[in-house]
Amino acid sequence: MVTTAPRAWASAPRIYVENVRGRDPAYNVSAEAILRSLHSVCRPAELTCCFSDERNLEALRRADILVAGRLDTEVIRSDARDLKLIQCTSAGVENYAPFNWLLPTTALTNASGVHAAKVGEFGLMAALMLHERVPLIATNQRFHSWKRQLRGVAAGRRALIYGVGALGGAVAERLHSAGFHVSGIRRNGRQHAAVDHMTTPDCFHNELAQADILILACPLTPETRGIMGERAFAAMPKGASLLNIARAGVIDHAALVSSLVSGHLSGAILDVFEKEPLPANAPLWDVPNLMVFPHVSADAPDGYVDRCLAILADNLERASSGRPLRNTIDPQLGY
Amino acid sequence: MVTTAPRAWASAPRIYVENVRGRDPAYNVSAEAILRSLHSVCRPAELTCCFSDERNLEALRRADILVAGRLDTEVIRSDARDLKLIQCTSAGVENYAPFNWLLPTTALTNASGVHAAKVGEFGLMAALMLHERVPLIATNQRFHSWKRQLRGVAAGRRALIYGVGALGGAVAERLHSAGFHVSGIRRNGRQHAAVDHMTTPDCFHNELAQADILILACPLTPETRGIMGERAFAAMPKGASLLNIARAGVIDHAALVSSLVSGHLSGAILDVFEKEPLPANAPLWDVPNLMVFPHVSADAPDGYVDRCLAILADNLERASSGRPLRNTIDPQLGY
Repeated sequence: MVTTAPRAWASAPRIYVENVRGRDPAYNVSAEAILRSLHSVCRPAELTCCFSDERNLEALRRADILVAGRLDTEVIRSDARDLKLIQCTSAGVENYAPFNWLLPTTALTNASGVHAAKVGEFGLMAALMLHERVPLIATNQRFHSWKRQLRGVAAGRRALIYGVGALGGAVAERLHSAGFHVSGIRRNGRQHAAVDHMTTPDCFHNELAQADILILACPLTPETRGIMGERAFAAMPKGASLLNIARAGVIDHAALVSSLVSGHLSGAILDVFEKEPLPANAPLWDVPNLMVFPHVSADAPDGYVDRCLAILADNLERASSGRPLRNTIDPQLGY
Repeated sequence: MVTTAPRAWASAPRIYVENVRGRDPAYNVSAEAILRSLHSVCRPAELTCCFSDERNLEALRRADILVAGRLDTEVIRSDARDLKLIQCTSAGVENYAPFNWLLPTTALTNASGVHAAKVGEFGLMAALMLHERVPLIATNQRFHSWKRQLRGVAAGRRALIYGVGALGGAVAERLHSAGFHVSGIRRNGRQHAAVDHMTTPDCFHNELAQADILILACPLTPETRGIMGERAFAAMPKGASLLNIARAGVIDHAALVSSLVSGHLSGAILDVFEKEPLPANAPLWDVPNLMVFPHVSADAPDGYVDRCLAILADNLERASSGRPLRNTIDPQLGY
């Protein structure tokens, strides 16, 4: 949490926006969107919008605020030394660690929470699918194989959510409403209204043994990299299943594939991959009882930018009145 | 609705149970299950449990109550003329129409409602999947094709449920809770708490034009056979999708396939087929953006028989006190 004294720049900031060419236009931040979103909190002294391949270095050097879909940390360190605030339009910032490029005078904020409604729905859908054995049914369909396996109701089944932040919390709320028993793991162990049973990462393997469905929704950090390896899969009960909406690096994919092929794990839904798009020759496409989703769990096409800029507007108000900013990244924790 | 005068047979009935050999044991009605379910409402004067291939014709001739997974209507007409009540353990009875084999002194009841919790969850899952374009994503996976198409939240989308009975009503409740706009079509047009907008079958094509997701949950009758033909699919907006948890006969499958192949319909989930298991050489297995489910939408493995027999117990109480039975089939309407 970054606390700021009331700051003059927040009422008339120099704003520099850099979009990523070729990315879905739903993510592009236009000058109009900035003016519309911020009109009640500030009047920009300067506003520059461009793509990163047509960078306006002079404007970036002068800027108080950078809004960007991808951060060029080298250039920020060398040239953008007056930045007070960097608003990243994605939730994950693991690609920018370690954060030694970030000046102590610059706050870095992410888009965490922008995805809540969408990811909550996606998480509920995926949990119901895993319960119903849809990955198995889809694999059977490829082989024209009708295998009927009746499943009881999902309500009452045990879901374990690793990472109860903005994404995991939104999923927890939908699963809780749908009648799942929801367990959660978060670093600080803080309770959550939608989580029946919260523990900390040191209890992970004990909790895995109780889980029907594991949902990975944590940031990728040195602590979470590879947490789902051979031992972790073996700790889950036979017939358990997995949803990954975090980052690919939290899973040892060779161990996942073994567990699916052996039938220990009944199914998996992956929405994140080391390399995206997943290459056409990647073996994951054909793993039995595994469904490949093209990274769609959290992003809605409508209003994404507006919801990001609402975080920025809120933070400008906070900065103006000297209150702590929200959505700040802790350079030590990495999220 | 069959109204009965208080009947002595209901307190000491002769009960004959016929199971179908080879069917999932979850559907088999045992003598223990009968005694457990009915112990508070009656003490059977006689109880026979057998498979249909070892029929005890003498016991059937004497019986007041027949409980059966499949009805041999010829034998019932010729031999079981003392039956007061036939409890069918499935919800659909379309295979027994026309009902001229049924004596006016025999009430026929089905298992409608037994499936509510399970089918409600399944309907919600399938509606979220259709909204998220999962049938398309699953087809793309077969071809190792990563095509990202961001979808907004499902809440607010328009679901149209054809047939708001026990199945359709349970689905309506879950969709309504999840924030869908729910329209319904039922023959009598009666309102339903979970349906925002109820109409009758004559409005079907008008309603189709407004539907993002169509859910077929009606009985198969002469009126509903083939309702989804070429004209009906064309009446739906481009990008709409379909779930069938009714009976295969309500759809003209050639028209469905055309609509999917042309891209007019964005996806379909079918849980019911003319012939089940769907034969390995059936073309439906490979239709793009179509998911084949092995008839699992409504049946839970646990407690199915107990929930069926709870209907019978309730009806025996009703018969004892002269109240109308529930779950009765109207021979004219066919459901």
